[in-house]
Amino acid sequence: MTTDVPGCVKKSRGRPKVFDREDALDKAMALFWQHGYEATSLSHLVEATGAKAPTLYAEFTNKEGLFRAVLDRYITRFVSQHEAQLFASDKPLAQALKDYMVAIALCYTSKETPQGCFIVTTSSALAASSAKVAEMIRLRHAEQAQTLITFLAQRQARGELSASCQSTVLGNYLSCVVQGMSVSAREGASFETLEAIINTSLISLPGVTN
Amino acid sequence: MTTDVPGCVKKSRGRPKVFDREDALDKAMALFWQHGYEATSLSHLVEATGAKAPTLYAEFTNKEGLFRAVLDRYITRFVSQHEAQLFASDKPLAQALKDYMVAIALCYTSKETPQGCFIVTTSSALAASSAKVAEMIRLRHAEQAQTLITFLAQRQARGELSASCQSTVLGNYLSCVVQGMSVSAREGASFETLEAIINTSLISLPGVTN
Repeated sequence: MTTDVPGCVKKSRGRPKVFDREDALDKAMALFWQHGYEATSLSHLVEATGAKAPTLYAEFTNKEGLFRAVLDRYITRFVSQHEAQLFASDKPLAQALKDYMVAIALCYTSKETPQGCFIVTTSSALAASSAKVAEMIRLRHAEQAQTLITFLAQRQARGELSASCQSTVLGNYLSCVVQGMSVSAREGASFETLEAIINTSLISLPGVTN
Repeated sequence: MTTDVPGCVKKSRGRPKVFDREDALDKAMALFWQHGYEATSLSHLVEATGAKAPTLYAEFTNKEGLFRAVLDRYITRFVSQHEAQLFASDKPLAQALKDYMVAIALCYTSKETPQGCFIVTTSSALAASSAKVAEMIRLRHAEQAQTLITFLAQRQARGELSASCQSTVLGNYLSCVVQGMSVSAREGASFETLEAIINTSLISLPGVTN
């Protein structure tokens, strides 16, 4: 169902004849990111994507299915790029962490997308009826901490982190700082403020040996 | 309009004859805290507080006015107690910070209230129509960072923090960690996980001289 024309090219051409899945996902992402999961209704999604409701239902089944596809696209578009900074194995540990956190801070403060983290913003006040969405989000955040823990364990194996350092504790701490940056960005913190927070958080990581 | 009987005593006595303002605020707080500002409707608030709609209107004007009163009560019930840990002037700087953050972590993970921070949870996905509420919340979070900055500046004046340390940067960093703890708690992090994050965040604060 996906055309090979990038979604952004089409904006001035009116409604495309062929449903552009990625373009629709990007527009749905902007809505969820700005307003959260609960407050984004299917009629808002229909309006923003320019797709007809039956098309959205055929493609994604329901709002939850659309959200799942949007979450996958967020990971492809943003998270994968941030993680590429982390897993650049030629960089010293502290630099890799800094580059990763700076990439995230740039994303959180970008004018092209809503402020803060898509996942934190979407998740904050989910109704009990959205248990599956809550679980998707919880798993994704657990993955973020796990990614950091995996990275730290790899560097520990290379001797860049002392053997006595608990990579789980350090990974949870860094994940916590990143999530706090989302809240700060949402309330208008500048990139420079986030960058100063990153620098402070990395000043004296316990056990870093390079 | 407030009786001098604590709200919790009344639970088994049916609807009180006199409107209990503090009890109503606590019940409204639980709703906003769990579901966020947007998803909490006036009819939910009427149902939870047991007050009649005209009573709520007379007392608070509208949902925004009720939220403002709830925010004040949250600060009295929780924030003031946390800040008392911070401003205990006989404690060394690092201990005061740790006690403050531990008090917050206990609150975020308490079984008696919804998980995470009332303000972070409430604020995350506010509609454009709730600009006044967004501003109330933004100011409150700015106050949290400012409280930490004030504390650090006081300790700097006492020589417990080196003169070269930027209290604004350090205060923003600690505020960011606290906000990140809220996100973690909301997703089910235990008190022990938050405590380990606190310990890591305080291991090597730059410029602390005691």
